[in-house]
Amino acid sequence: MKPEHAPTFTVEPWVIREPRLDLPKMGQTESIFALSNGHIGLRGNLDEGEPHKLPGTYLNSCYEVRPLPYAEGGYGYPESGQTIINVTNGKLIRLLVDDEPFDLRYGTLRKHERVLDMQAGTLHREVEWESPAGRTVRLRSTRLVSLTQRAIAAISYEVEVLDPGDDPAGALLVIQSELVANEQLPGRNEGDPRLDKSLDNVLEPEMSRSSDAGATLVHRTHKSALRVGAAMDHEVEGPDGIQVTSDANEDLARTTIIARVKPGETLRVTKYLSYGWSSRRSLPAVYDQVRAALAAARYTGWDGLVSEQRGYLDEFWSTADVEIDGDAELQQAVRLATFHVLQAGARAERRCIGAKGLTGDGYDGHTFWDTETFCLQLLSFVAPDAAADALRWRKTILPQAFERAAQLGLKGAAFPWRTIRGHECSGYWPAGTAAFHINADIADAVRRHVNATGDTKFELEVGLDLLVATARLWRSLGHHDPEGNFRIDGVTGPDEYSAVADNNVYTNLMAQQNLRYAAEVAAKHPRSASRLGVDTEEVASWRDAATSMYIPFDERLGVHPQSEGFTSHKLWDFEGTAAEHYPLLLNFPYFDLYRKQVIKQADLVLAMQIRPDAFTEEQRRRNFAYYESITVRDSSLSACTQSVMAARTGHLDLAYNYLGEAALVDLHDLAGNSDHGIHIASMAGTWTAITLGFGGMRCEADGLSFAPALPSSLSRISFGLHWQGRRIRVTITPGETEYRLVSGSPMRLRHHDEPVALAEDPVSLPIPVHDYVEPVEQPYGRAPRQRG
Amino acid sequence: MKPEHAPTFTVEPWVIREPRLDLPKMGQTESIFALSNGHIGLRGNLDEGEPHKLPGTYLNSCYEVRPLPYAEGGYGYPESGQTIINVTNGKLIRLLVDDEPFDLRYGTLRKHERVLDMQAGTLHREVEWESPAGRTVRLRSTRLVSLTQRAIAAISYEVEVLDPGDDPAGALLVIQSELVANEQLPGRNEGDPRLDKSLDNVLEPEMSRSSDAGATLVHRTHKSALRVGAAMDHEVEGPDGIQVTSDANEDLARTTIIARVKPGETLRVTKYLSYGWSSRRSLPAVYDQVRAALAAARYTGWDGLVSEQRGYLDEFWSTADVEIDGDAELQQAVRLATFHVLQAGARAERRCIGAKGLTGDGYDGHTFWDTETFCLQLLSFVAPDAAADALRWRKTILPQAFERAAQLGLKGAAFPWRTIRGHECSGYWPAGTAAFHINADIADAVRRHVNATGDTKFELEVGLDLLVATARLWRSLGHHDPEGNFRIDGVTGPDEYSAVADNNVYTNLMAQQNLRYAAEVAAKHPRSASRLGVDTEEVASWRDAATSMYIPFDERLGVHPQSEGFTSHKLWDFEGTAAEHYPLLLNFPYFDLYRKQVIKQADLVLAMQIRPDAFTEEQRRRNFAYYESITVRDSSLSACTQSVMAARTGHLDLAYNYLGEAALVDLHDLAGNSDHGIHIASMAGTWTAITLGFGGMRCEADGLSFAPALPSSLSRISFGLHWQGRRIRVTITPGETEYRLVSGSPMRLRHHDEPVALAEDPVSLPIPVHDYVEPVEQPYGRAPRQRG
Repeated sequence: MKPEHAPTFTVEPWVIREPRLDLPKMGQTESIFALSNGHIGLRGNLDEGEPHKLPGTYLNSCYEVRPLPYAEGGYGYPESGQTIINVTNGKLIRLLVDDEPFDLRYGTLRKHERVLDMQAGTLHREVEWESPAGRTVRLRSTRLVSLTQRAIAAISYEVEVLDPGDDPAGALLVIQSELVANEQLPGRNEGDPRLDKSLDNVLEPEMSRSSDAGATLVHRTHKSALRVGAAMDHEVEGPDGIQVTSDANEDLARTTIIARVKPGETLRVTKYLSYGWSSRRSLPAVYDQVRAALAAARYTGWDGLVSEQRGYLDEFWSTADVEIDGDAELQQAVRLATFHVLQAGARAERRCIGAKGLTGDGYDGHTFWDTETFCLQLLSFVAPDAAADALRWRKTILPQAFERAAQLGLKGAAFPWRTIRGHECSGYWPAGTAAFHINADIADAVRRHVNATGDTKFELEVGLDLLVATARLWRSLGHHDPEGNFRIDGVTGPDEYSAVADNNVYTNLMAQQNLRYAAEVAAKHPRSASRLGVDTEEVASWRDAATSMYIPFDERLGVHPQSEGFTSHKLWDFEGTAAEHYPLLLNFPYFDLYRKQVIKQADLVLAMQIRPDAFTEEQRRRNFAYYESITVRDSSLSACTQSVMAARTGHLDLAYNYLGEAALVDLHDLAGNSDHGIHIASMAGTWTAITLGFGGMRCEADGLSFAPALPSSLSRISFGLHWQGRRIRVTITPGETEYRLVSGSPMRLRHHDEPVALAEDPVSLPIPVHDYVEPVEQPYGRAPRQRG
Repeated sequence: MKPEHAPTFTVEPWVIREPRLDLPKMGQTESIFALSNGHIGLRGNLDEGEPHKLPGTYLNSCYEVRPLPYAEGGYGYPESGQTIINVTNGKLIRLLVDDEPFDLRYGTLRKHERVLDMQAGTLHREVEWESPAGRTVRLRSTRLVSLTQRAIAAISYEVEVLDPGDDPAGALLVIQSELVANEQLPGRNEGDPRLDKSLDNVLEPEMSRSSDAGATLVHRTHKSALRVGAAMDHEVEGPDGIQVTSDANEDLARTTIIARVKPGETLRVTKYLSYGWSSRRSLPAVYDQVRAALAAARYTGWDGLVSEQRGYLDEFWSTADVEIDGDAELQQAVRLATFHVLQAGARAERRCIGAKGLTGDGYDGHTFWDTETFCLQLLSFVAPDAAADALRWRKTILPQAFERAAQLGLKGAAFPWRTIRGHECSGYWPAGTAAFHINADIADAVRRHVNATGDTKFELEVGLDLLVATARLWRSLGHHDPEGNFRIDGVTGPDEYSAVADNNVYTNLMAQQNLRYAAEVAAKHPRSASRLGVDTEEVASWRDAATSMYIPFDERLGVHPQSEGFTSHKLWDFEGTAAEHYPLLLNFPYFDLYRKQVIKQADLVLAMQIRPDAFTEEQRRRNFAYYESITVRDSSLSACTQSVMAARTGHLDLAYNYLGEAALVDLHDLAGNSDHGIHIASMAGTWTAITLGFGGMRCEADGLSFAPALPSSLSRISFGLHWQGRRIRVTITPGETEYRLVSGSPMRLRHHDEPVALAEDPVSLPIPVHDYVEPVEQPYGRAPRQRG
């Protein structure tokens, strides 16, 4: 089969290489090549800014407020939303060669290669370009967003003149390195008059200042009133006679570097960039903050930043790396996945981790339940400090969550379905407000984090507040029916092709765990709990609600309905649905989707992943087969979960196919929207599929257990994790699994239900042979792509 | 008890009199005093235009298109809506007395009385006013919107000078009679920048022309491209030397009448107004149309118009009048109710009947299910031609309904939840698109109309198409579950405090009747049915679905759940809900309302009214009591239905209280929003409560039956109706009921299940004594006001 289009990227273990510029994939590559430390995010736009699909420079939680309109309003609908903004672009370095602007769309592009190096944490670019006038230059740029210096990004930019050209004195090179605020974004300011104008020119200039080789711009957003500072400084090396000047006005600061460069000579510019924002600090304070960060970066120097970056990543990869033998493409994808989740969370530091990290403007930059359920599943085991910070952020938005609960007539906290800074920004309540499960997902992330780290201080200082607030929510959201069942009616589970249903099994099981765990932690810390107003009666009422929790079961089919009554609904007409009519939500009304058996994303199946204790082996198998046949995976949050449960029910090759889908969602642009940012949760889900699926890992209060098994195409999977202060590595081969304690004190774990003591020496244990399992089927046309 | 505010209206049998101007109630009186013939609607604004609450001049189905915005969009959401517009105001007659503008807010108001005469069909006004300069005049105006000449309204305007004043030559009176387009409406053009601007200056001028004593303006709407013509002519009588001139420009035409009037003399102006609009006709055609209508009106003359009006109404009241002895307030209210329903529908002629008729801008002028379920219930029996026309209008919008069904993936027709000209205008699908019951409500109105009139030509020419289209919808909307039940999942019934539920009993019963009746009518007209593609297999599939229709029943409680699972939901905390927190939808989120047992308006109880055959006597009683205890009546569509079922279950005094609430909703402004128009459905429901409730009337294919009973406070109720070409009158007194055939051939009916033959002589039959019934309870604080 001849591919219509050569692959955009080569398959290599540690780098993502785009060997030639793939213009139609520009949006996707901008996202994949995005660099971020969780505080600053720079999309992989070209240094010279154009051509682009979507220019993007983001600061975590730096947003503008915009009105949310409704054709018919309702009580409690949020009146305004928060949208991440494209802040001052400091990536821009424009080049003129003998007065010809360097622009790939003109002249001749002899070479264009970009390489994301996941060990170095840099994006490198190398270009050979012949100007329309016939001058050839080689351009090398390397960009990093520092993982060690949170406010800092830096770019090394080199231009080498390759040929003598007409003028023997060499080429006249002009480099304009810029800070540009209020960049015009494609698709805005044009067309549809109904288009929201509130995000045009969102940055109001407050200050601009330039020095010899640098400048600073400070702006303020109109409605959210956030002060944003961006500063740059430059170091220049090259032939004699270089002239460097800078100027700055309201929305544009520019350092201009002019040099006459002979063939074989190189002009090198190092650009240091710093960013800061604050909702409280004064103009001088923000100004000083970005200048100080810049001074520290210059003190460290380019080589120092590069070396720190590698050191940080070496340390990270030593545990986080997953090795896969037998599928080079998957090996690369899993590393990219891990790398992007790290980038999204590494230095977020008590701010949210958005669904796209800081790689694009998708979902308005909002964070959802994805963070707790998918990202933290990974981060608690490979970057536990980042995971703890993400949950600490949840604690900081408790006041807004209390207020929202009160507005909804509920007790405790109702966390927003989507937000940047804590306020509910969902404009469609059946798939927003009603999706209360996010509260139990946060509690589950606390439980998992405490189990993974053993951090009882965190449990007390962060966990307790979150658990009490969410337990109170569930207790007030549900009620006992006359038979004594505790019911939770009219809510929406993870599957967005159903909404506002009674007794969603996922929600009820998660709420049950939330209530139980809150009761347990409150009992463990009675004095602190008492300070939150918790008494023994309240704790007893949580336990009682958990015990009485109603979990519907369809005896006729022998499966759990996703929600009460679900299995009586009409089956979707999968055979009658053309491939181009997926995703269904773009081609069918919610009305139609909600009333039929068709599932966008794992819901009951996710319940089985998180609450294996609530299902018998038989139920797991039957449920998995049933839901497999009606799940269309129109969400990128599904394949990873289906992979886990496929592996756990013995469908190893199917699990492998789903793993491939989860891992390649952005590299292969499977959802068709990678241009708006990386699917961070699916990236994290890749790790989950490997560890919880093939590793059969479970992390409970009573310890860590594994039940490994490999799909037929892979000869080896090795993954590492932090576990209560230790580091361990698990290596699965077809016949056996090796457990190795990399650091830390001896521990116990379980391997296929057998206890194992792990100390200095690695332990290898055989993998039991799996029983034959009946194959399962997906809806017509919706099977995952076969790998290998 | 001393009232804080004297009643706005006196209690009189045939008129609504406002004995003195009640400025704070201006909005309500503008609605109550609105005159309409179903084609033209003039709110009861003062002749001089100001002060006003809401100026309003409406033409049936004359609307503008406006965008419907969504915070988060979805497939199939309507992108634009239709909003009724305030057309050229021709009611305006300004007066200057010695150059002082006649304005009630200045000078001294010695007398101000307005009288709506329901026998004459006129609004009369009498004012004595002393100008700030001390000149006293008496003003008498009488306004009518002709029920006989559809395009015509007319105003008789007289000014009498009462005192000699300073100038013995008399007062100089200037009357400016106007047509004003694009009137500034209160609450628009100001404040909130997000406010929809698309309805400002909606009329684009196309032509203005004046003659000696008249003028014409033609405009066109921007987006809906409707051409609207308004014309006026005047006749003037008075002392010698009157000068009459007219001028017209784009948005204003004015006839100016100047006269010197001595004390005791009167200046009288008759203003003839005509209106026309068209989406197709040319400018000259529309111009000619309004001028021709005006010529006919002048030919008829004021006295002729007044006399025709009374003739029309005499004929109407001879059958439609309901006489009530024992409650003068109710007597008046019932006549006003009947009058306003007549006004809404009389000459609508294949256009919609809006929820507010043409009395205000409430609900954007849209029509809902109200028309078929409430208004036509009345009109089929007292103005059957108007009822037939309303259903003919539904037939004209079948193309849009077919298109909507196709968009929703359904067969047949999906009628819009709210519309003016046939397109779905609902911006909130859970209470719009999902409320499919409107389709069965239309079919029920066809069935009722055919039963009431015996009009088989109508059944074939109008009914068959509507029935086939709706039966097809239901067949594709429901499905058979593995047990063979025909289920209709994920729809919304009449109660808007529940939404998107499975097997709503009302919906399923109405769909069942729709399917059965469609099968019956198709079988009766096989050749016509065949032209619609109906074959015996299809008819069989309708019958089968009807037979298998699933009707959930809660065995534990012995009641029907409103929808499947409803009775397991948590009960609303009625005791904890303060009176000022009603209506609940303004104070609680839909999320909270939908998941609890709290009912806005009769749903299951309405099912019992329309489908008494589907319930046992015991079920009726138990269901009524159960739903009574959780229904808060936040909708004006509830009291009348509760009245019917209270009467039918023996709660006669409760039924009487509910009847009072339904009848007085606008006279007492019980919903607090009468300023935006009359609650036409509640008005119609008043008649329903009397006839179906106290009359125990049922109208089925096999005949008419009654089971009368009176509440203790009333000594007599008498009502008339058209029945298959006859006119009959039913008079209920405490002990017996008299049936009288007013005209037409002998007939049979049933009285309390006993057959009665009715010919020339009235028949009197005893009313059986009711068994004692257990009292029922309403939610805390929500009992209807006790009458009598």
